[in-house]
Amino acid sequence: MGGSMVVELISVGTEILLGNIVNTNAAYLAEQCAGLGLSCYYQDVVGDNEERLCAVIRTALSRADILLISGGLGPTQDDLTKEAAAKVLERSLYLHEESRAALQAYFEKRGLEITDNNWKQAMVPEGCIVLDNPNGTAPGIIMEKDGKHIILMPGPPNEMIPMFETSVVPYLNGLQSGVIFSQTVKICGVGESKAESMVKDLIDSQSNPTIATYAKTGEVHLRVTARAENEKEAKKLVKPVVKDLKGRFGSSVYTTEDDVTLETAVVDLLRANHLSLVTAESCTGGALAARIVNVAGVSDVFKAGYVTYSNKSKRRLLGIKKSMLLKHGAVSKEVAREMAKGAAVFSKADVTVSVTGIAGPDGGTEEKPVGLVYIGCSVCGKVTIKECRFSGSRAKIRENTVSAALALLRECILQYCSEVTFGSKEK
Amino acid sequence: MGGSMVVELISVGTEILLGNIVNTNAAYLAEQCAGLGLSCYYQDVVGDNEERLCAVIRTALSRADILLISGGLGPTQDDLTKEAAAKVLERSLYLHEESRAALQAYFEKRGLEITDNNWKQAMVPEGCIVLDNPNGTAPGIIMEKDGKHIILMPGPPNEMIPMFETSVVPYLNGLQSGVIFSQTVKICGVGESKAESMVKDLIDSQSNPTIATYAKTGEVHLRVTARAENEKEAKKLVKPVVKDLKGRFGSSVYTTEDDVTLETAVVDLLRANHLSLVTAESCTGGALAARIVNVAGVSDVFKAGYVTYSNKSKRRLLGIKKSMLLKHGAVSKEVAREMAKGAAVFSKADVTVSVTGIAGPDGGTEEKPVGLVYIGCSVCGKVTIKECRFSGSRAKIRENTVSAALALLRECILQYCSEVTFGSKEK
Repeated sequence: MGGSMVVELISVGTEILLGNIVNTNAAYLAEQCAGLGLSCYYQDVVGDNEERLCAVIRTALSRADILLISGGLGPTQDDLTKEAAAKVLERSLYLHEESRAALQAYFEKRGLEITDNNWKQAMVPEGCIVLDNPNGTAPGIIMEKDGKHIILMPGPPNEMIPMFETSVVPYLNGLQSGVIFSQTVKICGVGESKAESMVKDLIDSQSNPTIATYAKTGEVHLRVTARAENEKEAKKLVKPVVKDLKGRFGSSVYTTEDDVTLETAVVDLLRANHLSLVTAESCTGGALAARIVNVAGVSDVFKAGYVTYSNKSKRRLLGIKKSMLLKHGAVSKEVAREMAKGAAVFSKADVTVSVTGIAGPDGGTEEKPVGLVYIGCSVCGKVTIKECRFSGSRAKIRENTVSAALALLRECILQYCSEVTFGSKEK
Repeated sequence: MGGSMVVELISVGTEILLGNIVNTNAAYLAEQCAGLGLSCYYQDVVGDNEERLCAVIRTALSRADILLISGGLGPTQDDLTKEAAAKVLERSLYLHEESRAALQAYFEKRGLEITDNNWKQAMVPEGCIVLDNPNGTAPGIIMEKDGKHIILMPGPPNEMIPMFETSVVPYLNGLQSGVIFSQTVKICGVGESKAESMVKDLIDSQSNPTIATYAKTGEVHLRVTARAENEKEAKKLVKPVVKDLKGRFGSSVYTTEDDVTLETAVVDLLRANHLSLVTAESCTGGALAARIVNVAGVSDVFKAGYVTYSNKSKRRLLGIKKSMLLKHGAVSKEVAREMAKGAAVFSKADVTVSVTGIAGPDGGTEEKPVGLVYIGCSVCGKVTIKECRFSGSRAKIRENTVSAALALLRECILQYCSEVTFGSKEK
């Protein structure tokens, strides 16, 4: 199969150098390239300056096989990426008729007047491959010289990502001997270091497929990547490893599909079991409900959410007794339990989830420190409480709480379903 | 004053090259450096590899005066940044007694056992400045040679940012002739291009202070930066420009304080006027409430939030009539109005804000396209409705909606307060 090809990522834009925007393009492309089996040793950011652009491209060509460059393809005088890349490869630009027509159609469809500077975007280097950009005006460009590949993509993520997936991935796959196939095993409710120790032997012993671990908030993703002569062979290599991982992590694996998130998995599970959901949140203040509403079309499953940040609202909206709040404090397993039960009583939802905790930075005590969170989950009357201790900033604690609540929801629904199934078999 | 010094940002970590994490450190440092009047032409990312680290440091030294390097200072064998930087500057490492003691105290305070690999972090290059790290185990390091400055900071943002603010900013200010002072005028409810056109004459005509515009979701920040011999002089240069900007944008300016966010400004305004708040959200699904709960200690002002994503919950929790939902549709100015009114009736809050819209990707029609959002705001019985049309992804539309709701809240409260004040004067 040979060693893997080396890619270098170059992000172009003065707005990145000024810290005006976060370079999410580089993170996206880095993860994608790893999944395609490409090695990446350097990422660069450079402004909209032809001299410095040329210097960065020359340096990158000296140490990588493939340059993935995003940004600086637009219509303004500041957009110089294409000009710089063409200069380095000693190509001249010509008017690409199809791009000109596409540009015209783009503006006409939107009823916009096309200003003269836009035509610049239809100029492309000689001997290049032109990539369609259905979401914007600047086409992508691929140039090849002496076995090196320069790939230019627009900067806006909503243009770059579809172009990368549609046009660049097939091109990159074509460059490599054989085919890359990867599948991600997504796990919730298991800590990063525990997950890593559970797969260390596999990571150390495997070279094809490889296994890479990615820690997300409250989740760990294990990506299994194989290279083979064709897709069928590559899948055959990936399959037993995915099976092994599923065996090791059991029900903590919530999906092996790329486009399924933890909230999607929870919503799918609720829908499949005809269960309705209601949330009751204190410290997360609505962030758990908002995460569930990330799933489009969730209104058949998600009935409502209560944000009861103050004690008064816990009493009014969820019927928590004042004496209970006084006796145990708002952050207690007892109040988490009553919140989940109260939400179920008031909303008549099948499943409710409650959250109460100390997100900080103030409000912690020795007995109840910042980061202490109780999560309650009621499924058809059976309530489970989980105590969590998170660290970090207020924002970090709240993010972790949301993920932990989704993981607990999933666990409790699975538990309920297995009991129901078991119960029905008993009859 | 002379030309500005040139800084280059180097982020170290294989996890960035793999796309495991987004490089937010670079964005933070880039914005800070711009505010300090430093020029930045390149950012680099390199993995935990000594040879490549040395190469990147050498290249950066050839084109910048100051290298800000984050990451790779930890206790593991992979952490090689300090070793590489010392190698390039031909310095040997020695055990820094104060860092050793600080390391020991750090572990003892937390009741943790210190493993041998940790002591590596107390080794520092000869002739360097050592920077305290109260939030972690690896100290920061500043080295100087031939007028070039290499500054090493730990990678975790919660360690890097405090170290940068406390130790690195004063050092950087000391390097430059004179002093830099900057102040940010934060604006909401005005679009980016409109804001830019309103200050273009100022930006073009000013060189000290400079004015830079930063587009945030639903906000524009204008940063005014002056350089002068001392802080008093620099402030004197900034003051009239900030005054001019405040005049141009009037009540759209919500703060000129760095640590005040839009949600903080809204909460402060509510608190100052003894007004309580309740939210009622459909398409944002709790994200507006969650943003308000970003403000620690908000429970005196924020009473509760209703997340009424389904039509049924709009009826049950907010008392919206079925006939109204049928006649106007859930996404309508009428329903936004009834949601704000219903929330006020049920919660008895002084101020309520409601949101209903089509976040997509499905559910749009020609008459009511994806991105159409109605926001309602009721202040002591007076209801204002705003229609917005956003574009972009489901996530983007929801983010923009939250910001627009905060901006409308602020506008309506200000309006109410001015009427009350005016009214009382009339008497």
